[in-house]
Amino acid sequence: MSMSTEGLSTGRLEAFSDGVFAIVVTLLILDIKVPIGANGHLATELAGQWPQYLAYLVSFLIVGILWLNHHATVALLARTNHTIHVLNLLLLLPVSTLPWPTALLSQYAADGDPSDQRVAVLIYGITSSLMAVGFNLLWRYLLRHPELRRAGVTPESLRVRNTRYNIGLTVYPIATLLGLLSVPLFLFLMLALAGLFLLPTPELRGHPGG
Amino acid sequence: MSMSTEGLSTGRLEAFSDGVFAIVVTLLILDIKVPIGANGHLATELAGQWPQYLAYLVSFLIVGILWLNHHATVALLARTNHTIHVLNLLLLLPVSTLPWPTALLSQYAADGDPSDQRVAVLIYGITSSLMAVGFNLLWRYLLRHPELRRAGVTPESLRVRNTRYNIGLTVYPIATLLGLLSVPLFLFLMLALAGLFLLPTPELRGHPGG
Amino acid sequence: MSMSTEGLSTGRLEAFSDGVFAIVVTLLILDIKVPIGANGHLATELAGQWPQYLAYLVSFLIVGILWLNHHATVALLARTNHTIHVLNLLLLLPVSTLPWPTALLSQYAADGDPSDQRVAVLIYGITSSLMAVGFNLLWRYLLRHPELRRAGVTPESLRVRNTRYNIGLTVYPIATLLGLLSVPLFLFLMLALAGLFLLPTPELRGHPGG
Amino acid sequence: MSMSTEGLSTGRLEAFSDGVFAIVVTLLILDIKVPIGANGHLATELAGQWPQYLAYLVSFLIVGILWLNHHATVALLARTNHTIHVLNLLLLLPVSTLPWPTALLSQYAADGDPSDQRVAVLIYGITSSLMAVGFNLLWRYLLRHPELRRAGVTPESLRVRNTRYNIGLTVYPIATLLGLLSVPLFLFLMLALAGLFLLPTPELRGHPGG
Repeated sequence: MSMSTEGLSTGRLEAFSDGVFAIVVTLLILDIKVPIGANGHLATELAGQWPQYLAYLVSFLIVGILWLNHHATVALLARTNHTIHVLNLLLLLPVSTLPWPTALLSQYAADGDPSDQRVAVLIYGITSSLMAVGFNLLWRYLLRHPELRRAGVTPESLRVRNTRYNIGLTVYPIATLLGLLSVPLFLFLMLALAGLFLLPTPELRGHPGG
Repeated sequence: MSMSTEGLSTGRLEAFSDGVFAIVVTLLILDIKVPIGANGHLATELAGQWPQYLAYLVSFLIVGILWLNHHATVALLARTNHTIHVLNLLLLLPVSTLPWPTALLSQYAADGDPSDQRVAVLIYGITSSLMAVGFNLLWRYLLRHPELRRAGVTPESLRVRNTRYNIGLTVYPIATLLGLLSVPLFLFLMLALAGLFLLPTPELRGHPGG
Repeated sequence: MSMSTEGLSTGRLEAFSDGVFAIVVTLLILDIKVPIGANGHLATELAGQWPQYLAYLVSFLIVGILWLNHHATVALLARTNHTIHVLNLLLLLPVSTLPWPTALLSQYAADGDPSDQRVAVLIYGITSSLMAVGFNLLWRYLLRHPELRRAGVTPESLRVRNTRYNIGLTVYPIATLLGLLSVPLFLFLMLALAGLFLLPTPELRGHPGG
Repeated sequence: MSMSTEGLSTGRLEAFSDGVFAIVVTLLILDIKVPIGANGHLATELAGQWPQYLAYLVSFLIVGILWLNHHATVALLARTNHTIHVLNLLLLLPVSTLPWPTALLSQYAADGDPSDQRVAVLIYGITSSLMAVGFNLLWRYLLRHPELRRAGVTPESLRVRNTRYNIGLTVYPIATLLGLLSVPLFLFLMLALAGLFLLPTPELRGHPGG
């Protein structure tokens, strides 16, 4: 029996993280405002909110994808320790702030000053990149600590995931740099990336059991 | 031991989904505003908010019913895979947006322009229909993949549920078309449907063990 | 293996309910507003918000107590069925609306018109009474269905709880009627009741194992 | 089989608490407002919000640390009773109010009247101190009730944690007293304390299994 968090099961780490992921994904909708007093032009007013819907969709999908990866990674752990809990908190920090850069991007996407738009893209890009960095810190800690892993995890299966996660680490900064040119370009790039990550990779399809 | 999400248990899919369902149902109340400065007319002002209460009730019930169906469906799964997780995310997407069409309907139900009211009904109807579509995509994937199901699920029991879910897929679009005539009609139709779905069907009553 | 919800375990009913209870308790704080531009009088302005703090505390405690009773009741169930899920949804409905009557009471407690104050007390009282009614419907269903209960639940232990829950059913309406005289009286009565319910009863103390 | 909450497992206490911790941590972001109409000065306006970011970070970290300690403490329990549930509710009470003192501190940190700033620091300090008091009440109850603990918990491991938690009880009041001199000093002290608590202590590092 352990007195510290060493050797504890992964159950509550998952429960706390699932709570944060689920709440963030659901709070995002609070930033999409209902037009007041549309006077017969509601359809037009709603259509003008398209950057808000796109920003919502991007944020929903990147949290969803991160949840999938978090789920698959924690499932490899046989037990947790203090460092894993601290790394997990550092990952949840940018995740829980996401409604704010999403609202910032929504606010300045359509009719903001070009310099304000670049600031909004930059802050959204940094937040999503920090989410990827936080996830990779957790992942690399797991790679370096085979004693925390479940029996039966093969080096080959770790290698396949590692390639995928390393790519994940580079795409958000690249999309952010390109997004400084144009907010719509940034939103479409982020959406395309989310679509790609949701498709199973050939490697994952070729390893049905692992 | 699996490296991908193939073969993982259903526990975290349930925890994340339960989180989203519970949060959506609870966030809905934030859109019902407290009248400020009623000056002795609070009862009258609150009575005038009836479309908000009805929209709240409809949204609470359709999420509650979807949760019941989600619960019963995931309980049939012995394990999950990447496709199930992606289909589940696609189902949770319209669910998590529901407070927004609910607020839209509340805002324009009582005293909006008729064309604005039709837009609000249409958006609410599309969102609830997408929830039904998302659920049926998950359900049909389970029907086509017997290898993911628990042992002991009988074809007869799947058939009973399938009929019920196919009906569920058609009623929200029909209620939406009728609802274009009148917002109160739409709200009462949706409420009646929710009441029907909460009653156990004769088939379900006749199959106590499944 | 069951196809319907008959015979399912209580796990997801608990997870969904815990989610709703936890979110309601935490959303309540969003209704306590931070004074803007206090100009050196922040302490005075905050002191003037006392009805908001008291209403928050009452709502936090009645949800906490309901969670304790829900927890103890569901723990008696060996399995659930469709009716239990529907009764549980009917219980969660007034629970999830609680931030709204709490905000109403906060808004009109200190300086509202006396008739508005009575309306606010009445709505808060009805909501809390509906929570007690919903809980008792679930409890009585469990009393009438011994086949759903875990082995080893004694009639004596059910009787002790039953007395306690029947009392719970009468106190909120009584406090509401008295509260029509004065909002502070209502808040203090509700707070006193919460304190009483949090104390273990002699019967419960006398039955340490059950 | 128990009729009271005596002898129940710790599962739902954890689920409800994890829900509250996760929601508080995520709701905090709603208080960071997006500047409206920045007209090309968005970067400057965002930079001026630094006390809000710092207050957010402090609140996120103290909830995260409390969650870690709560997790490690509940893991020592073999079962719960009514008193533990009531003590846990008393701990969750100041936790669930945290978004309010955080918003108060954010609002008055940068440009408030000095006396208002001291009030904001005092309220934030009292809330965080009550969180520490609530946690220590739970911890001390566990120390006095060996019959509730899991087998294999050694006195030595309890002693190490006890020292750590006693220190935790004194630091928030001290930081609050010093913080009455200056809000930025208060925020940096709280941040430094959080950093210290996230580092594993030598004792914990020296007892990998306990």
